[in-house]
Amino acid sequence: MELRSKKYDDSADDIKSLDFAAPHYLSGPLRVVDSEGVPASPGDLLAVEICNLGPLPGDEWGYTGTFEREHGGGFLTDHFPSARKAIWYFEGIYTHSPQIPGVRFPGLTHPGIVGTAPSAELLNIWNQRERELVEAGHESLNLCHVLHQRPLASLPTSHNCLLGKMQEGTAEWEKIANEAARTIPGRENEGNCDIKNLSRGSKVYLPVFVEGANLSTGDMHFSQGDGEVSFCGAIEMSGFLELKCEIIRGGMKEYLTPVGPTPLHVNPIFEIGPVELRFSEWLVFEGISVDESGKQHFLDASVTYKRAVLNAIEYLSRFGYSKEQVYILLSCCPCEGRISGIVDAHNAVATLAIPTAIFDQVSCNSPNTLSSGHHIC
Amino acid sequence: MELRSKKYDDSADDIKSLDFAAPHYLSGPLRVVDSEGVPASPGDLLAVEICNLGPLPGDEWGYTGTFEREHGGGFLTDHFPSARKAIWYFEGIYTHSPQIPGVRFPGLTHPGIVGTAPSAELLNIWNQRERELVEAGHESLNLCHVLHQRPLASLPTSHNCLLGKMQEGTAEWEKIANEAARTIPGRENEGNCDIKNLSRGSKVYLPVFVEGANLSTGDMHFSQGDGEVSFCGAIEMSGFLELKCEIIRGGMKEYLTPVGPTPLHVNPIFEIGPVELRFSEWLVFEGISVDESGKQHFLDASVTYKRAVLNAIEYLSRFGYSKEQVYILLSCCPCEGRISGIVDAHNAVATLAIPTAIFDQVSCNSPNTLSSGHHIC
Amino acid sequence: MELRSKKYDDSADDIKSLDFAAPHYLSGPLRVVDSEGVPASPGDLLAVEICNLGPLPGDEWGYTGTFEREHGGGFLTDHFPSARKAIWYFEGIYTHSPQIPGVRFPGLTHPGIVGTAPSAELLNIWNQRERELVEAGHESLNLCHVLHQRPLASLPTSHNCLLGKMQEGTAEWEKIANEAARTIPGRENEGNCDIKNLSRGSKVYLPVFVEGANLSTGDMHFSQGDGEVSFCGAIEMSGFLELKCEIIRGGMKEYLTPVGPTPLHVNPIFEIGPVELRFSEWLVFEGISVDESGKQHFLDASVTYKRAVLNAIEYLSRFGYSKEQVYILLSCCPCEGRISGIVDAHNAVATLAIPTAIFDQVSCNSPNTLSSGHHIC
Amino acid sequence: MELRSKKYDDSADDIKSLDFAAPHYLSGPLRVVDSEGVPASPGDLLAVEICNLGPLPGDEWGYTGTFEREHGGGFLTDHFPSARKAIWYFEGIYTHSPQIPGVRFPGLTHPGIVGTAPSAELLNIWNQRERELVEAGHESLNLCHVLHQRPLASLPTSHNCLLGKMQEGTAEWEKIANEAARTIPGRENEGNCDIKNLSRGSKVYLPVFVEGANLSTGDMHFSQGDGEVSFCGAIEMSGFLELKCEIIRGGMKEYLTPVGPTPLHVNPIFEIGPVELRFSEWLVFEGISVDESGKQHFLDASVTYKRAVLNAIEYLSRFGYSKEQVYILLSCCPCEGRISGIVDAHNAVATLAIPTAIFDQVSCNSPNTLSSGHHIC
Repeated sequence: MELRSKKYDDSADDIKSLDFAAPHYLSGPLRVVDSEGVPASPGDLLAVEICNLGPLPGDEWGYTGTFEREHGGGFLTDHFPSARKAIWYFEGIYTHSPQIPGVRFPGLTHPGIVGTAPSAELLNIWNQRERELVEAGHESLNLCHVLHQRPLASLPTSHNCLLGKMQEGTAEWEKIANEAARTIPGRENEGNCDIKNLSRGSKVYLPVFVEGANLSTGDMHFSQGDGEVSFCGAIEMSGFLELKCEIIRGGMKEYLTPVGPTPLHVNPIFEIGPVELRFSEWLVFEGISVDESGKQHFLDASVTYKRAVLNAIEYLSRFGYSKEQVYILLSCCPCEGRISGIVDAHNAVATLAIPTAIFDQVSCNSPNTLSSGHHIC
Repeated sequence: MELRSKKYDDSADDIKSLDFAAPHYLSGPLRVVDSEGVPASPGDLLAVEICNLGPLPGDEWGYTGTFEREHGGGFLTDHFPSARKAIWYFEGIYTHSPQIPGVRFPGLTHPGIVGTAPSAELLNIWNQRERELVEAGHESLNLCHVLHQRPLASLPTSHNCLLGKMQEGTAEWEKIANEAARTIPGRENEGNCDIKNLSRGSKVYLPVFVEGANLSTGDMHFSQGDGEVSFCGAIEMSGFLELKCEIIRGGMKEYLTPVGPTPLHVNPIFEIGPVELRFSEWLVFEGISVDESGKQHFLDASVTYKRAVLNAIEYLSRFGYSKEQVYILLSCCPCEGRISGIVDAHNAVATLAIPTAIFDQVSCNSPNTLSSGHHIC
Repeated sequence: MELRSKKYDDSADDIKSLDFAAPHYLSGPLRVVDSEGVPASPGDLLAVEICNLGPLPGDEWGYTGTFEREHGGGFLTDHFPSARKAIWYFEGIYTHSPQIPGVRFPGLTHPGIVGTAPSAELLNIWNQRERELVEAGHESLNLCHVLHQRPLASLPTSHNCLLGKMQEGTAEWEKIANEAARTIPGRENEGNCDIKNLSRGSKVYLPVFVEGANLSTGDMHFSQGDGEVSFCGAIEMSGFLELKCEIIRGGMKEYLTPVGPTPLHVNPIFEIGPVELRFSEWLVFEGISVDESGKQHFLDASVTYKRAVLNAIEYLSRFGYSKEQVYILLSCCPCEGRISGIVDAHNAVATLAIPTAIFDQVSCNSPNTLSSGHHIC
Repeated sequence: MELRSKKYDDSADDIKSLDFAAPHYLSGPLRVVDSEGVPASPGDLLAVEICNLGPLPGDEWGYTGTFEREHGGGFLTDHFPSARKAIWYFEGIYTHSPQIPGVRFPGLTHPGIVGTAPSAELLNIWNQRERELVEAGHESLNLCHVLHQRPLASLPTSHNCLLGKMQEGTAEWEKIANEAARTIPGRENEGNCDIKNLSRGSKVYLPVFVEGANLSTGDMHFSQGDGEVSFCGAIEMSGFLELKCEIIRGGMKEYLTPVGPTPLHVNPIFEIGPVELRFSEWLVFEGISVDESGKQHFLDASVTYKRAVLNAIEYLSRFGYSKEQVYILLSCCPCEGRISGIVDAHNAVATLAIPTAIFDQVSCNSPNTLSSGHHIC
């Protein structure tokens, strides 16, 4: 099957006004049945192969942005409190942006979101644990002195709620709006996991919680860096997606691994496809669990990764870029974020590896002159 | 220059009795001078190329272990509180273990430790911030309900202290033992970062804090997975290491990026070499920021990675392995741990990708029969 | 710019009746001008980036065939004198064929043909040297006891000649038909080089021989093996192609390297793109310069490669395939043909490396069960 | 088992005086037995895994050369009739040469030779077919107007014959010397195949022709380009090699594929290991079957590859290198030679792909400054 989704338009100020709780435009839900017409059932596993995807023909562009602090911010809100945006134009597998000159790279195109619908039981679990998080408040959370993105969770709300063909304002609409999960985070159903390696040729095994699976997908990304740090941080595009589904009967129990109080506490598994990008030279920045104030944290991979990203921003900003430009670039270029060490107490080590080929090479008098002497940006 | 280091011997119970604060056996410190005999100076950058490394000839074996809870534990102490060990035998680039049959893989060999010596000023910063961490206690730390590894930090102590040629018991020995940093965690000087990709052909740029740099290295790893989750978790071996050093005068200011209260708050940068392993098929496990009790955390990458590792252990233990075997295997095989998403509040997403080629393939009646039909394990 | 081409239709017997001298359906010629409207000139270099390409939407299938001996044959005509064909269906990046079950692989999609138009001078050179080859006859050619493909060259002919909008039957039409080069072989203008690595993201530097360059392209391949041994041997498809051109003024002299009697005796240069397929396990067959009769040849890479291909066919045919099926498979799957040794007189060594992942894996009781236990072919 | 071999010494003129028929210094023959002491038997297959290899400690250097025409020449003898040599020094995985400045690359280290001993029957086949080649003379050979390397074959001779512990001058010594095959070319027993991809972790399946297999190996190469075009053309080094052997009883019949008049006309099969070099940017030169005089050949891959190599030499010699330097560089750097097209009569297409990372990059004001600004050559 093939799906198409449209992203927000290319107006100058849309990032600033975008609400953190704004809905993702999803395609779906799709009822999945087997070749004999029998629908997927709770407990089945849905094997979804990402056959193909790309920009919508005629719409070969995308954007990357970060939000203002009061609209959600991003991984580095405390450093970059203002909204910013870069427009990216596509030339086949490559992209470039007038807002970040001197950079051109191929995209590892993928859907930010693919997921099944939760059952009422699972939805209740989500709503309860997320409400508890919000109610505890950020003062109770250690990371909240370090990660300033807000709100802590997006609880169900009728604000900006898209409920398909339901009649807005009816009692049923209100009821659903006040129970339905917002699609910002990934959860047990996969959802908005924003995993850059879930690209062409990959196959993800999703749990089925309701009859027909009710598969949705959307949030097409031309490219993304691990972490998607600026939040609206991939190269967001209007795109098409071709999927192939197979139902593995009873597969949840056979293949997924509940970790938590119920058998619903599972996470999907996936296989990476055979066409990832081939880079050979990587510049790698490190971080340890010491925050910007010099405070020591305990094996905290989020603090650690934040520091690695800050180091990369500082370094790259010495080559003629503003820090905001680098922040957005690291959010959307094919960089790799690794948890390198998580046991050498008290410092975890995270690394951020950037393929140097994304930068224009200006070589002089070398056998590479041909290409670099005539590059187009 | 070439360095050699010996690891602990192959006795049956050494893991259990190994103290968390046990010293790493390091080679060094080495005073680095340029071709005119002028030593590296504070503020310089030391470019260290990992030319070659491998097991000590005649000592072609290593081990992977996890500690008992009271001796330090590991990333999953609460799940695996007992000490365990696997011995690995090397056959050229490959290794296999009688304790984990059915597995054979090539190693991405690397030094767990390479680092320069801290200045007195930097040492003070370390000791102070680490003392504050310990004094605050684990009750004050959010992650400590999730990560059970202890102690929180290894403060200076005369217990198990190795001070080279200094005379033990003298006042000077005591003074140094009570000030000198333990080498368990990586810090601003790189140190025990345990980064698996810092392999042959890589080049790491280290800050110089004292005259001569006082470069040390050790902790030879035949192979390690991202995270090194079982703590004593790489394939630890006796090995040799060949390095090449270059001094970049004034390079700290030019290339490193202080993030923190002083110019000493830096992290090294490195470039990955051209001989990483080539795998094409990866099975990927995901985690989100929900712990085993079902509690929701806020964008916490450590909790998230813990869940991904638990999922992988549960899955692989269905194929005839005990969970302890898988825990140790994931700690030392060339698996990749990624911070895939860190902004989709409230759930971070981490992934653990395992190359399926590490497992014996039992194929029947396919063109691969030749190899798989006669594999040796 | 984007180009579209249609291939022959899916009738049962089209391969058999296809004439060796049948025209390629090309798009073009395109007159290339710079941003100021000045056309490319003889002596310029045309940098053509392959931005994107793929099957025509709605036409997601292709075919691979070999011709009967009297219609052209292929690399192994003496072994496989009859026409054969396989139809391939595409699922995103993957393809499979009902005629060759148990095989599924991703395609390294590329145009078989991209080239500029020859000048009259170059056309004369071609026609003369090719006529000399034909006139000498195959008895004069050493390889012709080994390579049985015929005719030796496709000289200009009015038979099956496609001349665009020209009025067939006019004197001018006849004149051109009897001078114009057939597009079967690659030549100095690139043309039908059938290089599988000239895929997405690649950039080829073409010589310009006439004003405007007169760029043509076509012969879309979903996938091809090195050598394209069965002749109509890639997965031939109807496709679209997006190109980006840049004119490097005077670039022929600066970058190309004439080897021969005139400055027109050049060959294009290209750069490979960053999205080649990632395979890790290869089964490799070897050949040496001894033919099937046992006769020793002298450093002959064609004989050598023929033997490597024959070895692969013999081997793979033991796994339930007919030799014709393997011949066609090796022609179109992403296998690699190498000239490994060309100096160890008297035997050259060629190798044919086949990625084993193209074959269905039937694993039992291994962690790969998930995927292989539910594969779809 | 581990083997060690010494290469010729580093004197200034050894290349020039080296005789084409000079023996390879081999280690072996080794009698291979199984764990119960039963030797390999004719008809078995010997699976040889290349566990590890490298330069002899203390001997970390090698050389690449080409011979004078009268001593054997090379692939391009007609262009480069004089002997030349470059000395290469090793720094771990990298090498560089004072004779070819501005170049530094990692080696894909491999044995040029690994092979089993022929039976008397197979030896007779070799001697007969090679004698016929020599007796026919080069005038009878089409390629000999293009490939000028001589002699056509190295027939058995007592000149420069090394026969282990046999007493030279005895009748038995003379008899053997006049029957024993010279080890210049690869043959059915593998032998001097000079396949660069037969590196660490590879596994080659060799036929067994005599009891005990009589395995020999040698000709250690630090690095080689496909084709090894300058003849003494890899980076030849003194080295060690660790092998692991397994006997597959009756495997010749089961896995190898005779193509020729007898069941002995087989070629080995091998599997490539998982640690090949990772390059991402390749500059590719093409050749077609037209020789330097402008003459058209028929699908001749040797002529075609010769032209691709000539094009690369011409191009690279514009960047400050002599053509002799480039000839030697292309012979020993990790470049890839492909048979891209072998059916588009009358022109075969061969490509020579060179990884651009082997050349020093002089980048200015780019994020790669760190590495390139301080490179050491």
